[in-house]
Amino acid sequence: MKLNIALLPGDGIGPEIVDQAMKAVKAVAQKFNHELEYKQALTGACAIDAVGDPYPEETHELCMKSDAVLFGAIGDPKFDNNPKAPVRPEQGLLAMRKKLGLYANIRPVETFESLLHKSPLRRELVEGADFVCIRELTGGMYFGDKGRKDDGNTAYDTCIYTREEVERILKLGYEFAAKRNKKLTVVDKANVLESSRLWREVAQEMAPNYPDIKTEYMFVDNAAMQIIQWPKNFDVMVTENMFGDILTDEASVITGSLGLLPSASVGIHTSVFEPIHGSYPQAAGKNIANPIATILSAAMMFEYAFDLKDEGKLIREAVAASMAEGFVTEDIAEGQAQSTSAVGDWIAHWIEK
Amino acid sequence: MKLNIALLPGDGIGPEIVDQAMKAVKAVAQKFNHELEYKQALTGACAIDAVGDPYPEETHELCMKSDAVLFGAIGDPKFDNNPKAPVRPEQGLLAMRKKLGLYANIRPVETFESLLHKSPLRRELVEGADFVCIRELTGGMYFGDKGRKDDGNTAYDTCIYTREEVERILKLGYEFAAKRNKKLTVVDKANVLESSRLWREVAQEMAPNYPDIKTEYMFVDNAAMQIIQWPKNFDVMVTENMFGDILTDEASVITGSLGLLPSASVGIHTSVFEPIHGSYPQAAGKNIANPIATILSAAMMFEYAFDLKDEGKLIREAVAASMAEGFVTEDIAEGQAQSTSAVGDWIAHWIEK
Ligand SMILES: CC(C)[C@H](C(=O)O)[C@@H](O)C(=O)O
Ligand SMILES: CC(C)[C@H](C(=O)O)[C@@H](O)C(=O)O
Repeated sequence: MKLNIALLPGDGIGPEIVDQAMKAVKAVAQKFNHELEYKQALTGACAIDAVGDPYPEETHELCMKSDAVLFGAIGDPKFDNNPKAPVRPEQGLLAMRKKLGLYANIRPVETFESLLHKSPLRRELVEGADFVCIRELTGGMYFGDKGRKDDGNTAYDTCIYTREEVERILKLGYEFAAKRNKKLTVVDKANVLESSRLWREVAQEMAPNYPDIKTEYMFVDNAAMQIIQWPKNFDVMVTENMFGDILTDEASVITGSLGLLPSASVGIHTSVFEPIHGSYPQAAGKNIANPIATILSAAMMFEYAFDLKDEGKLIREAVAASMAEGFVTEDIAEGQAQSTSAVGDWIAHWIEK
Repeated sequence: MKLNIALLPGDGIGPEIVDQAMKAVKAVAQKFNHELEYKQALTGACAIDAVGDPYPEETHELCMKSDAVLFGAIGDPKFDNNPKAPVRPEQGLLAMRKKLGLYANIRPVETFESLLHKSPLRRELVEGADFVCIRELTGGMYFGDKGRKDDGNTAYDTCIYTREEVERILKLGYEFAAKRNKKLTVVDKANVLESSRLWREVAQEMAPNYPDIKTEYMFVDNAAMQIIQWPKNFDVMVTENMFGDILTDEASVITGSLGLLPSASVGIHTSVFEPIHGSYPQAAGKNIANPIATILSAAMMFEYAFDLKDEGKLIREAVAASMAEGFVTEDIAEGQAQSTSAVGDWIAHWIEK
């Protein structure tokens, strides 16, 4: 099979970790006889520096032609705390999501036995937690009408959803639940928001079409509590963009393995795979960043974008082996820490062997 | 001093717990020679049942004439999962907030040594955590323009803030920080939302007026993580209505003492004091609900609404004594559990003694 991948390393540690993921991708492609075609493009702060645009047209065109995008991370401290900066790296991210139609962000929340002691939660609460957060990614307040009135003294944002947008993401939620433990938790604020009432209405209409799946409705404030108190009760959680931004970050932190968690953003034109962690500028260029989340994102890419399950599985096994061996970077090493590139090489060799 | 209190017991366990709080209020008023005037009114599901309005005009008038409102809880299961119900208890809550101008909801997040084992967090992370969440309560998406378009197939909500609203709540935040540990964390999503950019702009303008206080800016998704990872790093957190709804619930759960936490809503016309827990319908009428959060809300009432610090302190001491003694309801009892009214009596007697 021909695998056509766009590489968007981005800022900070992005380039280093994408390099490691590509070692694994190449090893797997070779092993399974896939033809690999990949090209790299700029995004984020580095794209602003180079061409004044965090998601340049050229980058977009490359993504549009790709079957999958492997993304590193974006963001640079020089843009922090400057709400008035005319161009910001995040705008590139949002433009990319919108233009590629990346309507669903999928984040598996999994624990790693060897990292459970890093979870802020008591072990017995989180051990065995295993759920998937599905966040709507191209609607809501992120993309609704926003602006100022009264000489700039009044500011507004609009959360807006259409029935089609809600149906599309709930359908995906049901598909995931059908393949997992048959429970879908729809998170909203239907007691206050009109947009949430639409979400709930649509969910209530769709639920009877999935008789095997238990549909559960939960207010977002309650969900923020349940994630900490009873994370094992979730199977698939689906919610709108802004709530998802908050809840998925909360959910990822309870695992104790933030640095290891991958994500997929499923789109109309292509799909994007990226670690959930940020660009970690302090570590950039030091060869110390943990590449595992990006390597696992590559595994998701094989599974979701190319429907190549065995390839994804092999990458996961290689990652698990490196962790079992303790061949890992300093953030999770118990003994001797390895460099970013050493971990990437180890995993690629394990795949080749 | 004359203390003019409106009592809004509400639904579920509301009446029982407000009764206990009033026992403490009466005991303190007697001891310190305050003249107590109080009257009760309907709100919530019981008000819908009685007069078809969850916040009847009569109730509002009583509140407007009061110096403080002691509130129980509202909500009834018969309204759950029915987003289309024409009148809902929560509408009463929102109407009350708006009409009384309750612009700031204040929630102290404190731990109780004897309940730390109930926290979902590892003890060392949460032990000693002590911060205050200030949530803007009359603006944002809760009260912005909302509705449907396209034959009901598109739904929208508007998050809107004026400079004055932001200044007012940030000022309160700075006042709290000044009396505490001199750190104010302003939580927003200024990298995406225009309303958040206004919040941050205003905060950046105000910060230099409070040179003793460290102003910290944090994105809401990051805050959702920090609350679990490093709760001890917070002193005073201030945020807009919807983010506050989510984060304050998250924050209260980490203490392990959700059933004990009080809150105050500071207003233009009066102030409202209420437990943060809900109406717990399953326990209604069983004389088993924990009255402590409501009793501590009464302590906040003395301190905030009447500026009577000693009175508030005495109530707190009485509560602490009941807990030290293990004279508590079943939800937190280690040995023999006491009834709601027994705990109320015990605390009132302790105050009298
Ligand atoms: C950087 C920011 C715009 C972005 C978001 O809010 O979506 C990030 O927090 C994320 O979750 O990918
Ligand atoms: C019941 C609901 C409308 C309310 C809110 O969202 O404000 C509640 O969750 C709260 O926090 O007091």
